[in-house]
Amino acid sequence: MSGEDAPAQEQNAVDQKQETKPAEEPKPEPPKTESAPDAAEAAATPAAAAATAEGKAAEEEEEAFAYRALVLTGYGGYDKVKLQVKKGRPALKADDVLVRVKACGLNFADLMARQGLYDRLPSPPFTPGMECSGLVEAVGEEVTDRKVGDKVMVLNRFGLWQEVAVVPASHTFLIPEGMGFEEAAALPVNYITAYMMLFDFGNLRPNQSVLVHAAAGGVGIAATQLCKTVKDVTVFGTASASKHETIGEGGVTHPIDYRTKDYVEEVRKISPKGLDIILDPLGGSDTHKAYNLLKPMGKLITYGTSNMLAGQKKNLLAVAKNWYHQFSIHTLSLIQGNKSVCGFHLGYLDGEMELITQVMNTVLDLYKQGKVKPRIDSTWHLEQVGDAMRKMQERNNIGKVILTTEPMPEEEKKEEPKKEDKKDDKKKDDKKKEDKKKDDGKKEEKKDDKKKEEPKKEEKKEEEKKEEVKKEEK
Amino acid sequence: MSGEDAPAQEQNAVDQKQETKPAEEPKPEPPKTESAPDAAEAAATPAAAAATAEGKAAEEEEEAFAYRALVLTGYGGYDKVKLQVKKGRPALKADDVLVRVKACGLNFADLMARQGLYDRLPSPPFTPGMECSGLVEAVGEEVTDRKVGDKVMVLNRFGLWQEVAVVPASHTFLIPEGMGFEEAAALPVNYITAYMMLFDFGNLRPNQSVLVHAAAGGVGIAATQLCKTVKDVTVFGTASASKHETIGEGGVTHPIDYRTKDYVEEVRKISPKGLDIILDPLGGSDTHKAYNLLKPMGKLITYGTSNMLAGQKKNLLAVAKNWYHQFSIHTLSLIQGNKSVCGFHLGYLDGEMELITQVMNTVLDLYKQGKVKPRIDSTWHLEQVGDAMRKMQERNNIGKVILTTEPMPEEEKKEEPKKEDKKDDKKKDDKKKEDKKKDDGKKEEKKDDKKKEEPKKEEKKEEEKKEEVKKEEK
Repeated sequence: MSGEDAPAQEQNAVDQKQETKPAEEPKPEPPKTESAPDAAEAAATPAAAAATAEGKAAEEEEEAFAYRALVLTGYGGYDKVKLQVKKGRPALKADDVLVRVKACGLNFADLMARQGLYDRLPSPPFTPGMECSGLVEAVGEEVTDRKVGDKVMVLNRFGLWQEVAVVPASHTFLIPEGMGFEEAAALPVNYITAYMMLFDFGNLRPNQSVLVHAAAGGVGIAATQLCKTVKDVTVFGTASASKHETIGEGGVTHPIDYRTKDYVEEVRKISPKGLDIILDPLGGSDTHKAYNLLKPMGKLITYGTSNMLAGQKKNLLAVAKNWYHQFSIHTLSLIQGNKSVCGFHLGYLDGEMELITQVMNTVLDLYKQGKVKPRIDSTWHLEQVGDAMRKMQERNNIGKVILTTEPMPEEEKKEEPKKEDKKDDKKKDDKKKEDKKKDDGKKEEKKDDKKKEEPKKEEKKEEEKKEEVKKEEK
Repeated sequence: MSGEDAPAQEQNAVDQKQETKPAEEPKPEPPKTESAPDAAEAAATPAAAAATAEGKAAEEEEEAFAYRALVLTGYGGYDKVKLQVKKGRPALKADDVLVRVKACGLNFADLMARQGLYDRLPSPPFTPGMECSGLVEAVGEEVTDRKVGDKVMVLNRFGLWQEVAVVPASHTFLIPEGMGFEEAAALPVNYITAYMMLFDFGNLRPNQSVLVHAAAGGVGIAATQLCKTVKDVTVFGTASASKHETIGEGGVTHPIDYRTKDYVEEVRKISPKGLDIILDPLGGSDTHKAYNLLKPMGKLITYGTSNMLAGQKKNLLAVAKNWYHQFSIHTLSLIQGNKSVCGFHLGYLDGEMELITQVMNTVLDLYKQGKVKPRIDSTWHLEQVGDAMRKMQERNNIGKVILTTEPMPEEEKKEEPKKEDKKDDKKKDDKKKEDKKKDDGKKEEKKDDKKKEEPKKEEKKEEEKKEEVKKEEK
């Protein structure tokens, strides 16, 4: 039903293709790039001969201009994002800049996009990616506040997971002194999101209490750091137990293992009256829980539906469940409870770059004061985007997952690290089927390390279970 | 159906009763007040004789202690609030204070309460009233921060429309130097409500835009003044045209006559992108309009359902309409719109006196700085509570409607001003029936002055219209 059972072989094939592709040197292709479609026609008149010569030079330069880009070729699993080579220098509008991308950030919205669950994007094929960092390589004729050589962060609706990106100059922010490209790629989406939720909708003030779900994720870590900029704020953070030490060091006052404990109960033990602010990236029934956990004058800020993401490909059951349990509220309940319910998604705010720039400047001030600092979980080559997405989706990251445009060293490619992952892949697909049986779309167990130790054994167990279910069905 | 057609005679009778009652001097009644129920039993033993003597003295003092109180005797029209005399000094708990009430504020919730539309109150009979000012006359044994003679404002769930009120000391606030009792009675509910909506949920900041409905009402005027404490805030305020000059002087940037113009269109003309904050006391379909009128990151704060109040008594059609049109929102819409929906009602916050006290202190600081000042529309004697409520319900006030506990001079009573009002009453009831026919529960026309000039003529027209409708129905 959900496409979880796509054969592993097919995925293998695709992954190999992805792996080999970037190794190929981009070969100049025969004439006729888009930018010089009528050169031959123009050459037909003598007066145009000189122009044609110029055009030819441009054409040649054009041909030489090639860059790698990740492309979402269709909705589905990790393999749907493919590394391709694009040719031709992209055209710049008057207020655009061309950025030579150094690093890109991964976000949950990218995972949703891959499954076709995010509606602010074109239909595939297109290049995903909402944030990156890099160097300005060219500026449009009306751009005055950016110049060639500027180090910038970029925020865009999509299109940034490639080596060269053209965006309006207003979508770029200067990288402050001392901030590396990876750090810069990790900052925009998570910190702007966390800041606007906590300080615009949330109106966070001293002595308040905040619940941060997925406290080890990108937004979670940003939110925790931002909470710590306000006096005596208590942060409750959910994460699996193995991450508690790290998030505790990062500022979470009370880490809660949502997989072994009921987080509502845990919060009530410490804060019986409830909480002032709850950041909810989960959606579905967790939004209901959050609402009930608010104090009077409390604010629930929901900013995602990650509960919909239950597997590599679109899980219709999880999506349906999420819709079914979607939180809906009447104003009379809000009045009687003195509560606030807010929705936030940076992806729908792209018309508000002025506001976003203000927030970014505030965040960068906090960075310069040493009060916030993105935490990088891991950096992956463009070729490894599938693994990078998996790490994030399976919540194995602590901090931001980053893609770098640096070429992948040959020896890394030869090591074929994918093979072991491939086994994992199949195993996980089986695992997910089982999860669906349990009707538990969210709390996938992520015992990767264990699995690697004894993958065959686990697989067998899963097979046995499946057969048991079949028998029951008969 | 709605009780609008209660005979005017009945109202006359009740009003007369109300008027004559306070003129009676409170006569001490025969023995057995609540505070000395077993004095006779105690006297049966010689050892208790002395105690009995003491008890008798107390009893006598008790008997002498009498005060006037407004009492809601049942749900319904203005006449349901009756002036009665209560006897016996109320008992104080350890943390209570006894306040000799000087002035009381009227609030929309009191009007809702009278119609049985407010659920945080006991069943009738009880004394309404959520705010008052007065002098502390006695303090419970554990009260340390209030003393006899303190001038205080009081906030309570109900029970303040009387000459003597007993409340927890934590529900009182010291009246600052230079503030009169009427002003003090006008401040708590409106300014705390406006402050918490604008600065807690609303997070009002410079350069933002705010829509204040009923901008000439108590909360409306408080909200306007509070908006003006923030730099470059644009205030859109709805009110009937006759009030525009006053609210303009008070700080409303753009007064809008909601009775002749579509306020949504008027706002869009000036602020095409919409608004940052909307305070919505109306409910029903107006909440939908407000939501659509929000900018991204905008906050809708709904704090009432005054659209339910369409007439003197409960109007089931208006109530049903309001329920039917009640705004309900899904989190996905909030996320995609980057919007916030909040509900506020001070009456449901009585468990949060610490928070309320903080807000009150901030408001009083603003008062001391001359930045806010309650505007009194009119002051009425307890005997005139019906007229006071009517003035408010019919939106004929600009600012706060106040009750004073000062005795009503005899000559005012002899003038019998009620008579003319009575005609008005019947006329208005007719008027309302017509309004219902028009299916317009909110926008009652309030041409009192005109009506007084030629009441008969107006009445005739209404009658004619009614007959026309009947014909159509046949």
